[in-house]
Amino acid sequence: MQQIVLDQYCDGAPLPENFRLETASIPEPGEGRFRVRHIFNSVDPGTRSRLSGGDSYAPALPLGNPIDGFSVGVVEASHNADYPEGTEVYFAGGWRTHSIQSGRGFIGKVPKESRLPLSLWIGILGVPGLTAWFGLKSIARFQAGDRVLVTSAAGPVGATAGQLAKAGGAGQVIGLAGSDAKCAWLVEEAGFDKAINYKATPNLSVAIGDAMPDGVDVLFDNVGNAMINRTLPLMRQNGRICISGQVADYNLSPSDTPGIVNTKPFITHRVRMQGLVVFDFMPAFAEALEAMSAMIQAGDLTYREDRFVGLETMPEAFCGLFRGDNFGRRVVQLDQSG
Amino acid sequence: MQQIVLDQYCDGAPLPENFRLETASIPEPGEGRFRVRHIFNSVDPGTRSRLSGGDSYAPALPLGNPIDGFSVGVVEASHNADYPEGTEVYFAGGWRTHSIQSGRGFIGKVPKESRLPLSLWIGILGVPGLTAWFGLKSIARFQAGDRVLVTSAAGPVGATAGQLAKAGGAGQVIGLAGSDAKCAWLVEEAGFDKAINYKATPNLSVAIGDAMPDGVDVLFDNVGNAMINRTLPLMRQNGRICISGQVADYNLSPSDTPGIVNTKPFITHRVRMQGLVVFDFMPAFAEALEAMSAMIQAGDLTYREDRFVGLETMPEAFCGLFRGDNFGRRVVQLDQSG
Repeated sequence: MQQIVLDQYCDGAPLPENFRLETASIPEPGEGRFRVRHIFNSVDPGTRSRLSGGDSYAPALPLGNPIDGFSVGVVEASHNADYPEGTEVYFAGGWRTHSIQSGRGFIGKVPKESRLPLSLWIGILGVPGLTAWFGLKSIARFQAGDRVLVTSAAGPVGATAGQLAKAGGAGQVIGLAGSDAKCAWLVEEAGFDKAINYKATPNLSVAIGDAMPDGVDVLFDNVGNAMINRTLPLMRQNGRICISGQVADYNLSPSDTPGIVNTKPFITHRVRMQGLVVFDFMPAFAEALEAMSAMIQAGDLTYREDRFVGLETMPEAFCGLFRGDNFGRRVVQLDQSG
Repeated sequence: MQQIVLDQYCDGAPLPENFRLETASIPEPGEGRFRVRHIFNSVDPGTRSRLSGGDSYAPALPLGNPIDGFSVGVVEASHNADYPEGTEVYFAGGWRTHSIQSGRGFIGKVPKESRLPLSLWIGILGVPGLTAWFGLKSIARFQAGDRVLVTSAAGPVGATAGQLAKAGGAGQVIGLAGSDAKCAWLVEEAGFDKAINYKATPNLSVAIGDAMPDGVDVLFDNVGNAMINRTLPLMRQNGRICISGQVADYNLSPSDTPGIVNTKPFITHRVRMQGLVVFDFMPAFAEALEAMSAMIQAGDLTYREDRFVGLETMPEAFCGLFRGDNFGRRVVQLDQSG
């Protein structure tokens, strides 16, 4: 088996040389355990928080430890009757080709009747899709008619959030993305009302204001405080900000992030801002996954994948997330059967 | 009659010379209207927002206009059958001795059976008390067991919020105030578990952390971003910040306020922050006032008043709010019958 471990802590943007590939013998599962052969692994921006060496909210990852992530795979050896050989599972796997699992923690079985591609269970049917679902419905408390602004909209969280809003009767769904191709996809494939290429827009606040002349009910932010600062003055009464992710701020020390400059709209416009950790909603995952699976099968919810092949590509796949290189959910295929 | 009008716009902290006393003849009420003789007027920090000359969220007050505020008074001439002569009312009155009212907008009748002092209807039974009630219950969604930190705790909003939390079974209620006398009152009279004199505390973050070793479930903030920045790292999981007021920031231009520096806890600790405009809850005012009246009569809710006498003292009473001079609700008595 192979795995990727942390070789040096990151200082600012992560670099491929912060990571190291290791080879080991394939482990045997103990009593009650089972071995999963990973088919797809994900790279996730949130992973960055443990790679700076200091304890932040999550403890620092020790040097030499394998990197966290999500995976989908198949049980290939089992001493656990609930997970017999051949079971397809999605789980907190990590950057490796094989792992030993106990069936506890974040793990689910891919429904046998599902005809959807396996990789979706770490994409639109995994943490990104669930983040969009619960961020929009439980944190932003989306209601029909809401005018919704989504940042990092071509990413798997943003694209899903915008489509769920549109499907729920949003008054307007506008996305921000970093290329004309992403913007075209958002409008033509994902059904956004409009997309703005923020890299080609000199004054983004003005562009958002022009696109949303009636203001913003919901800001679904995946980027960070710079986006919140631009949008706060445009918020409507009782507007809501869901802090889903802060990819632009993860590489900065807290004192270097832009912060939130003007908090007056919180009072004057009764704005509510709340952060999200999707695992708080674990008891409701099954229901959300069933609903989103049905929407995908009916053609009402689309997605884009940005696929790499081979475990050794994972560091580069990860580092590119912070440059906005990904166009859709970045998954790494480990096995040609996927 | 007399009234106080805006003579010059304020630049930074308001000064008495920004205001001017005017004398006019007592107006006669037209059809459907009535004249109220003001008995008490309040001075309110939020008034500052209209005194800078630029439109912020509220339009700038035109020079020469009377200053807004809340009042309690008695109807002394009426062409409105709902408000006969002798009716005691609390209302959006302003810095004047008499005013003509129509019965629309924010106005209520002092219950005939009430034996509570009239001035309470612009204090703990007025906007400050209602702000505490709805801020704690509807915005912060206070629950028994919550550990609550209140800033500007000896002011009428903070003192009421802390007592309501305590009465509701808070795990801990800590107040920040600006003098030892205020701190002593908070603990001895208002039943706070502890009060911290922030002016005599070199490292306030450490002092709050020492006083609340298990962290903060609810920050009820009346001060501004400096307090939010100190408290955010101490917030517990699912913590809530109620932005009730930002008195320290009202005199600053948005670019000069400290802003919110580190937003990571919004995600990591699922913090929710929301601002409050109490008039959003107007349909529920009667119920809150009944409950708080009963608590006051039972001795379960106390208050402090900081009384000035004479309309001409209002500018100085108002300006002192921004230096933290007030100890309790600052009301101005216009009439010896109050």
